[in-house]
Amino acid sequence: MINVGIVGISGYTGKMLLKILLKHPQVRVSHIAAGTTKGKLEDIHPEFTGQSDLTCDEFNLNKAVSACDLVFVAVPHTKSLEITPGLLKAKKHVIDLSADYRLKDTNLYKKWYGVSHGDEKSLAKAVYGLPELYREDIKKADLIANPGCYPTAAILALAPLVSTSAKNILSVTIDAKSGVSGAGRKASLDLHYCEVNENFKAYKVLEHQHTPEINQCLSNLAGDKIDANFVAHLLPINQGIYETIYVQMKQAVALDKLHEMYKKFYKTEKFVRVLKLGAQPEIKNVVGTNLCDIGLAAKGNLLVITSAIDNLIKGASGQAVQNMNIMCGFKEETGLA
Amino acid sequence: MINVGIVGISGYTGKMLLKILLKHPQVRVSHIAAGTTKGKLEDIHPEFTGQSDLTCDEFNLNKAVSACDLVFVAVPHTKSLEITPGLLKAKKHVIDLSADYRLKDTNLYKKWYGVSHGDEKSLAKAVYGLPELYREDIKKADLIANPGCYPTAAILALAPLVSTSAKNILSVTIDAKSGVSGAGRKASLDLHYCEVNENFKAYKVLEHQHTPEINQCLSNLAGDKIDANFVAHLLPINQGIYETIYVQMKQAVALDKLHEMYKKFYKTEKFVRVLKLGAQPEIKNVVGTNLCDIGLAAKGNLLVITSAIDNLIKGASGQAVQNMNIMCGFKEETGLA
Amino acid sequence: MINVGIVGISGYTGKMLLKILLKHPQVRVSHIAAGTTKGKLEDIHPEFTGQSDLTCDEFNLNKAVSACDLVFVAVPHTKSLEITPGLLKAKKHVIDLSADYRLKDTNLYKKWYGVSHGDEKSLAKAVYGLPELYREDIKKADLIANPGCYPTAAILALAPLVSTSAKNILSVTIDAKSGVSGAGRKASLDLHYCEVNENFKAYKVLEHQHTPEINQCLSNLAGDKIDANFVAHLLPINQGIYETIYVQMKQAVALDKLHEMYKKFYKTEKFVRVLKLGAQPEIKNVVGTNLCDIGLAAKGNLLVITSAIDNLIKGASGQAVQNMNIMCGFKEETGLA
Amino acid sequence: MINVGIVGISGYTGKMLLKILLKHPQVRVSHIAAGTTKGKLEDIHPEFTGQSDLTCDEFNLNKAVSACDLVFVAVPHTKSLEITPGLLKAKKHVIDLSADYRLKDTNLYKKWYGVSHGDEKSLAKAVYGLPELYREDIKKADLIANPGCYPTAAILALAPLVSTSAKNILSVTIDAKSGVSGAGRKASLDLHYCEVNENFKAYKVLEHQHTPEINQCLSNLAGDKIDANFVAHLLPINQGIYETIYVQMKQAVALDKLHEMYKKFYKTEKFVRVLKLGAQPEIKNVVGTNLCDIGLAAKGNLLVITSAIDNLIKGASGQAVQNMNIMCGFKEETGLA
Repeated sequence: MINVGIVGISGYTGKMLLKILLKHPQVRVSHIAAGTTKGKLEDIHPEFTGQSDLTCDEFNLNKAVSACDLVFVAVPHTKSLEITPGLLKAKKHVIDLSADYRLKDTNLYKKWYGVSHGDEKSLAKAVYGLPELYREDIKKADLIANPGCYPTAAILALAPLVSTSAKNILSVTIDAKSGVSGAGRKASLDLHYCEVNENFKAYKVLEHQHTPEINQCLSNLAGDKIDANFVAHLLPINQGIYETIYVQMKQAVALDKLHEMYKKFYKTEKFVRVLKLGAQPEIKNVVGTNLCDIGLAAKGNLLVITSAIDNLIKGASGQAVQNMNIMCGFKEETGLA
Repeated sequence: MINVGIVGISGYTGKMLLKILLKHPQVRVSHIAAGTTKGKLEDIHPEFTGQSDLTCDEFNLNKAVSACDLVFVAVPHTKSLEITPGLLKAKKHVIDLSADYRLKDTNLYKKWYGVSHGDEKSLAKAVYGLPELYREDIKKADLIANPGCYPTAAILALAPLVSTSAKNILSVTIDAKSGVSGAGRKASLDLHYCEVNENFKAYKVLEHQHTPEINQCLSNLAGDKIDANFVAHLLPINQGIYETIYVQMKQAVALDKLHEMYKKFYKTEKFVRVLKLGAQPEIKNVVGTNLCDIGLAAKGNLLVITSAIDNLIKGASGQAVQNMNIMCGFKEETGLA
Repeated sequence: MINVGIVGISGYTGKMLLKILLKHPQVRVSHIAAGTTKGKLEDIHPEFTGQSDLTCDEFNLNKAVSACDLVFVAVPHTKSLEITPGLLKAKKHVIDLSADYRLKDTNLYKKWYGVSHGDEKSLAKAVYGLPELYREDIKKADLIANPGCYPTAAILALAPLVSTSAKNILSVTIDAKSGVSGAGRKASLDLHYCEVNENFKAYKVLEHQHTPEINQCLSNLAGDKIDANFVAHLLPINQGIYETIYVQMKQAVALDKLHEMYKKFYKTEKFVRVLKLGAQPEIKNVVGTNLCDIGLAAKGNLLVITSAIDNLIKGASGQAVQNMNIMCGFKEETGLA
Repeated sequence: MINVGIVGISGYTGKMLLKILLKHPQVRVSHIAAGTTKGKLEDIHPEFTGQSDLTCDEFNLNKAVSACDLVFVAVPHTKSLEITPGLLKAKKHVIDLSADYRLKDTNLYKKWYGVSHGDEKSLAKAVYGLPELYREDIKKADLIANPGCYPTAAILALAPLVSTSAKNILSVTIDAKSGVSGAGRKASLDLHYCEVNENFKAYKVLEHQHTPEINQCLSNLAGDKIDANFVAHLLPINQGIYETIYVQMKQAVALDKLHEMYKKFYKTEKFVRVLKLGAQPEIKNVVGTNLCDIGLAAKGNLLVITSAIDNLIKGASGQAVQNMNIMCGFKEETGLA
């Protein structure tokens, strides 16, 4: 039994973390904090009425340090840089759900997130928390950079191909669609129900900040530079990401062989399902779960890989708990089944 | 051909007014303004790209007076008090879509809207713009208090009963459900897509500010005090209001007689449909139209009257145009068919 | 550890039962069946891919008897009459989620469900499975008539009042709104996405088949005849029921006293939350849970009681598992927390 | 003033046709028919209550011929082959909204629609009804093959590029998302509200029947074979199509030059809007209109072209009326503004 804290409880990922952790048999949530929100949990998120007596304060390092063995930092990008270094200094384990420790290249970080990084030391030690690819590193990590939602769906869909056939790839184009919770819990006219409902739109076309994160990871897997094209769209649903990925190959790949290879790649993974040929993922089949579903199709030199996850679970809080389980030596699927 | 202005173009009723008026054959929209929003129309509402060259300024009385014969004031409650008096003084016709000129009792106004009225003179002359009931007064009016969305659906549903059988009524209870556009176009966490979608809730239970407006009108029709109970709910759709109204009668009423009376009451009305017995309104049958559909049912001494409108059209902008048509001597359904 | 079966796996309540039971630590799902659907579970509900190896057959009494200690019967109304008697004869525990064993008066059953009952013997022994009211009877039952979704929300909302103040009640009117899963999983033009989305309508006004079930239970609690008025509406969401209940009292009741009484009535209940005065239930706060949230308001002699549940969980499958837990001596909230 | 008929009134395109045509000042709807549905219009589509006295019969050639100058055939694929030849023989103008006269290659037709064509004579004369490209042919046509919804959005988005730069194109990949009305108005479990709502999925990946239609038209424009990749997705909204189109060019194209060329290409078109650089289409900006919005972006050799239409209007019934206006010498935007 460990004591964990959640910083950033007022957002959707913070709330989802709490929902998962309150049922986790080896965890006690001992501390919740937020940027500006204060007060009883049930006044912030009425759904927890009667389920927990927690009270939320503004973040205070000393309190967090004394109350927690491990801290989930679920704050907006750039804010984690103010919180995480102190926690690490106090020898706490940190799982950072922001983007602040994902990009190893601080120039890229500055370009996409607008501020200088300044915590290169922690950054160097941060482990990218995609368990299906980096489980062994996660076991030994002090700081986890929990992957972004879009990158999780993209990388899991592409990892088997990229890590085995990089030389055969001409181009990678990711058409990504996300439910609205991915935009965060904030007052904004763009997120007003009537602006989103019965609507659909592309946004940040070819300029989404998750692109360098995807490329960093895919390039590592490929042992070569991958420069994927990425287009994001806003989907009028609460939770879920769907990605349709177009890979132009130099030479055609036999679909059944590819499918076999994918099945084998994820054979022992509890949270990735490679669907049978002919089937496609559906968001409703993964929503509320930590699963990633993957489908495959091909025509000539083109591969179409589809993937679906719950953006708040496998794309954020569920994956964070999976990382915690690995770090702490718990069974990996505890609290996530 | 008249020149009209819209003050409050950035909101949903302002936008809907413009959408209707741009197609109206006897109207030229000569002026649009808003509280703080400025700039080209297509930057405020991209859907008008290529449809209009209008530019929006902050409201300026002189500009409005020189550009318009008639002004629609579609601003938040209490803001019309700052705009309407000047327009009236300049002899302009005003159709006010806010609540500011609806309640004849300024004490009630202060109680429900939080400010002293201060324009009793205009208030005394304001005509409540429900054409099906007050057409003759509307013809002669300078200032129309355009009815609220909830009151429109409630009053049209109850008018035939209340104006003929008030003595037989024991109690009136209105269970009202509104689409989200009724809450206005503003940045608010409560209106965030994820807070509204897949949700439903009652709000302002027995304390909604439209209650005194409903009671004022029903009491006038009854020639006696009516004190209706009113409960509002937020419905996860963009547009539409549905009201299920429970009327306890002292003595049972024959349903077929009642139905006949309702049919007769609205016989010549183009925008009210009394459905056949057994049928119930559906929001999808009235959305996008200026129609109000009404259904009737009964059990013992209880009547159940259902009504549906589009809150932005018959509940706001469509009705405002209907009022304009009457005031200006145009055919009443022009631009609304 | 017991072996349980689910008959009716292809429907929404069958699917939800399986979802809950697969995580229940004291249960093994040993048998699934359906009316006409056959084949591998993952072909019927792809979301279970990799989660279970179950195969679905047409219902066969002998198979069910040999495989199960307890059977959930989640079939359409009137079909349970063909299945349940044989299971009971073989000494199996049965939790029937259909309406077939709810109404004690077989004339009422025939009137509302269109067929003669014919299994009066089992009917006489059937216990109405609302644990908050009938826990002791459930412990000893062989056959549970699992309550309808609308009745669960209505009865829990009214039980404290009706069981203590029946003499003071003049009339009870229930305005009920249900998500679409309540209509069942079947091909029907009325349930086509485009017919339901952005729509809202009343249906079966004052003639819904759940009315006699509500009245039977309320009358028992009151020790006197209660004849509630009930109007159902279709809400464009997947899961959730909201009821706004209007109770005309002979004499006004102090709201704080009433609230205290409600809090006390449900003090030890894990699945009922009486909200603080001023707060109202929201469907999003109970969806995905076995909870019922209740809100209270009053004006003069009128009480407004609001309640919200997840129609598939507390309104069907969750409550069924709660009943199983009680019957089998498990901790009541096992699998439902 | 001409007399027009609609065959297939029970579907969504038939209903939308009627909605548009009832307001069209130069048209009288003199005849409506359907496959199996019969009866008063208001019993089929209650929203027309009080708006029309039309009655629907099973299709009868003689009736249609005697009642109409022009007939819209809005029936399922392959059914038009049974209806259109007779109408043409009787010298009626026909606008066919099915796919039956779109593919000039009858082998392709058989491959994708499963039946032999058998009306090669009419097929040879059929004009593909995309007014922005084939206006002059439409003027002289007797039979219009009204384009499919996906092809309309794809072809309008690609026409300027393909007709000027075909030699520079390496590959075309269309990621298309459609609202649910595109699937037709029929009882089907796949279209059940709860199966679609809060869901998203790819379907008919690389095997959608609209692919050959797109390729036929693009190849004609290019003067060379174009073999586009096409993936369809189901979007949880009622109306609207969004396509994100990825074009790999041999040599990079200057985005501002491309934009200028697109603006010029559609300069005089009332129903196509090329958005300013940086802006992207949104479905809500075109829903309820006959507009197609187009956005452009580029990175290296990749072009990303986005387009949005209302699938029932510009993608079906609105375009059909636009075709009628052209055929009959009416102003092209009559009834569609």
